[in-house]
Amino acid sequence: MQETTNMCPKFEAAIKLLSQKWNALIINHLLQNNCERFCNIESAIGISGRMLSERLKELEKKGLVERKVIPETPVRVEYSLTEKGLALEPILKEIQNWSTKWVEITE
Amino acid sequence: MQETTNMCPKFEAAIKLLSQKWNALIINHLLQNNCERFCNIESAIGISGRMLSERLKELEKKGLVERKVIPETPVRVEYSLTEKGLALEPILKEIQNWSTKWVEITE
Repeated sequence: MQETTNMCPKFEAAIKLLSQKWNALIINHLLQNNCERFCNIESAIGISGRMLSERLKELEKKGLVERKVIPETPVRVEYSLTEKGLALEPILKEIQNWSTKWVEITE
Repeated sequence: MQETTNMCPKFEAAIKLLSQKWNALIINHLLQNNCERFCNIESAIGISGRMLSERLKELEKKGLVERKVIPETPVRVEYSLTEKGLALEPILKEIQNWSTKWVEITE
């Protein structure tokens, strides 16, 4: 794309985040499950371990997901949404509302 | 991507629509301006005529935008959002709210 765009880069960053494959699913799962272990997210959304690990690292880097190490034997690692991540809920809900009402899948 | 996804295909279609370059800008402009002529959209958002024409045709095909031909001399063509298009407003607002509050542009 060569054209310059007037779109607010913040808006664009948010859309990019949500449109990246798996992100909305991971965030949605964590909205519903609060603290969750890696393997539970993996099986719940049907993502490969490699891909989930990559996505969680990115989401952690962006400040959306928090990784907690619980010093048990064996060590337990849990993922949860930060305040920033939790604040995505209204967006996901509105997209869900709109798409349920208006999108027809014809394929 | 080889993994199967459990994401609702309707949700995915909505995200895809909003993430396609220019769509959110065009929809946002029409939300603010009701009925609008091609050249006004073009100059307001800084898109090329060719690209705008392509996007408006797609949005019309998806039932989001309506094209009205007003039989004046010369003929006037106006674009507006349909009910389905207008219903996107809460999504765009929530994305705007979230990104204004949480996204930091560091580049």
